[in-house]
Amino acid sequence: MSKLAELKPVAGGGLLDRRVFLKKGITLSIAALVSDQLLAASDTDRQSWMETPGEAFSNYGRPSPYERETIRWTMGNTMAPGNGVSWSPLQNLEGTVTPSGLHFERHHNGVPQIDPDKHQLLIHGAVKHNLVYTMDALLRYPMTSRFCFIECGGNSNAGWRDIPIQTAAGYFHGMASTSEWTGVPLKILLDEAKVRGRAKWIIAEGADASVMNISIPLDKALDDCILALYQNGERIRPENGYPLRLIAPGWEGVINVKWLRRLHLTNRPTMARNETSKYTELLPSGKARQFTFVMEAKSLITNPSFGHKLNKPGLYQISGLAWSGRGKIVKVEVSADGGNSWAEAELQTPVLSKCFTRFRIPWQWNGQAAVLKSRAIDETGYVQPERSDLIAERGKHGYFHYNAIVSWQINNQGEIAHVYA
Amino acid sequence: MSKLAELKPVAGGGLLDRRVFLKKGITLSIAALVSDQLLAASDTDRQSWMETPGEAFSNYGRPSPYERETIRWTMGNTMAPGNGVSWSPLQNLEGTVTPSGLHFERHHNGVPQIDPDKHQLLIHGAVKHNLVYTMDALLRYPMTSRFCFIECGGNSNAGWRDIPIQTAAGYFHGMASTSEWTGVPLKILLDEAKVRGRAKWIIAEGADASVMNISIPLDKALDDCILALYQNGERIRPENGYPLRLIAPGWEGVINVKWLRRLHLTNRPTMARNETSKYTELLPSGKARQFTFVMEAKSLITNPSFGHKLNKPGLYQISGLAWSGRGKIVKVEVSADGGNSWAEAELQTPVLSKCFTRFRIPWQWNGQAAVLKSRAIDETGYVQPERSDLIAERGKHGYFHYNAIVSWQINNQGEIAHVYA
Repeated sequence: MSKLAELKPVAGGGLLDRRVFLKKGITLSIAALVSDQLLAASDTDRQSWMETPGEAFSNYGRPSPYERETIRWTMGNTMAPGNGVSWSPLQNLEGTVTPSGLHFERHHNGVPQIDPDKHQLLIHGAVKHNLVYTMDALLRYPMTSRFCFIECGGNSNAGWRDIPIQTAAGYFHGMASTSEWTGVPLKILLDEAKVRGRAKWIIAEGADASVMNISIPLDKALDDCILALYQNGERIRPENGYPLRLIAPGWEGVINVKWLRRLHLTNRPTMARNETSKYTELLPSGKARQFTFVMEAKSLITNPSFGHKLNKPGLYQISGLAWSGRGKIVKVEVSADGGNSWAEAELQTPVLSKCFTRFRIPWQWNGQAAVLKSRAIDETGYVQPERSDLIAERGKHGYFHYNAIVSWQINNQGEIAHVYA
Repeated sequence: MSKLAELKPVAGGGLLDRRVFLKKGITLSIAALVSDQLLAASDTDRQSWMETPGEAFSNYGRPSPYERETIRWTMGNTMAPGNGVSWSPLQNLEGTVTPSGLHFERHHNGVPQIDPDKHQLLIHGAVKHNLVYTMDALLRYPMTSRFCFIECGGNSNAGWRDIPIQTAAGYFHGMASTSEWTGVPLKILLDEAKVRGRAKWIIAEGADASVMNISIPLDKALDDCILALYQNGERIRPENGYPLRLIAPGWEGVINVKWLRRLHLTNRPTMARNETSKYTELLPSGKARQFTFVMEAKSLITNPSFGHKLNKPGLYQISGLAWSGRGKIVKVEVSADGGNSWAEAELQTPVLSKCFTRFRIPWQWNGQAAVLKSRAIDETGYVQPERSDLIAERGKHGYFHYNAIVSWQINNQGEIAHVYA
């Protein structure tokens, strides 16, 4: 077995081979050594919770009271209380699934409390049969499940600012979350309604008090859209669309209509608020980007990140998330020297299409200043861009679809800042 | 497109090809047809939740109030309140992940509320270095994530009764749940402590007030055990072992020690209560089964199941769960005629080793009495046994490791009973 200090880094700044700890035993020198004498003495030193019976069983569990900082951070429009967002606290999470209670929210007029017995889905317009589905009827249809991310098109938009925002990773990039969604493939219902030849778009409408609506190309609906009834095993939470949500894997969050009540087949998009005054952007060329459905590949290091602190030099694990709306992540590279050199991170298996992929790499911090970065590459060959390249393409006044490489600067005190580097 | 009635069943009792609805459009005749006139009239008929702003953002979400029946069912020992179990409501769940709030529980002396800053893990005994790990130290180690089930060795033990228990699927088989667990591979810590040659077992001990302990063969610990800090993305819930749980994928729940405080390397098992007076069983031959670690392949139909009701003849989806402690499920077969004929169900992908696998098959119920069954086959070739075969092998007085085929009888009113058939 080797001492950690003897290991050769695979890139600058102390990055180690991503699998080195599974290949051979290494003394990491983080744990404390205990002598046999101390051991014997400590055996009677029991904490209070070993001396008295614990708490009762519960019908529905909650996180530990010691984890009360792991919550969604909310930001509302003070002029319209039901309009705003909440962020998933990505800096405190691990693995790939986002607990449903921490899945990000974006509401336009609050969270409706819908009685599922009174809620229906209507499919109409350019179809042979206008059909109405009760939730009980939908529950009898063939279902499918898939893990996939939903990301708001406005996620990470603080990245467009001239000065790097100093905030937690989740408050910056946490309008992205992953769940196991289960429901009826939309194709089955469209086949049943018999779509007419002129239909090219579907206008999806929600049952909230803002009656949010959006246009979706028919091809996407027939490809992989799901009418989801379940999220992470149980029925969808109210803030995520109970009792029915349209899931459009890999496409911007606004397409994933919550509280879905209506699908209207048409020959053209409806030009709704959220595809004209919002989610449309002017490019430096003077042309506008519109219907920018797909969320391009992205990654960020969630640990360590802003708000964490490295207490002393030594071994750390760098861990983060990568995802692409175009398919699978094939590689994530990490740099600990501001992008001068890169090492390949380990990807948690199974790597799923259009889903969060957890990446990790061990890192030996020498106590000096360092800049950590990650960049994702997806199965189309797309490489997550540096910020300067994204701005060169899209201009300085963007708002949506910010997916540039994120840089965390660590100073010699182990404190972490967000930098453009 | 075809009418449902024209489809040829693939097995007795109306089972349909598992992928038929994705291959071609079929009129399922569950939805209601709506005329254009009715449609125009209904457009102004809005529910109350579309007329007033919805509820505010929340820091941590909860299920819909309309889903209040989807809870863990608890059963405590009235002589010792902290001793008992709670069941996951499998009959109301879909997909593969169990929400953490609904993960089954088994406690011996209640749920300790542990301060993670005061909790430590000790590794000692037949090792070169006695090591103590704080939770902060463990959080710096290389981690891995995997989806896997945990199942209590006593799950489904009502199946040993002479008369079939009439209760919901989850109250019968719901001491099994699946999560994405994230933590440090135990092998890394054992390598660091330097296990001595004589060590063959590890005694794992919890920090609850019963100081639950159990013996684990060293080979399993080095193979795939994880010291989990996270469950489904967030830190483990108190009732599931916060802040640290031993995960032994595929092995009976009692091995997956919660609130883990100590790993003692030894040359033999400790002969703890839970491996002698419990979890040991006399066979008809007079020999005892002991150290029956692996949970053999099992499946059950969760929908429809006891407590559900089929309101009228027509199309239904049969959906259930299969799992094996020996690896991946390779096939699940379903019968709608009490086992006379079988059809292959669709397995939800990705199929993961030692993890819940969701299976589904469409079924055309003709309104007559029927008996539904499922049987799982895993990658070792093991086939889930009929009840009579299990009893022939293990005797009539078993208590643990009941994994026989489950039969649900549907009468001509659509009511469902549990039967031995």
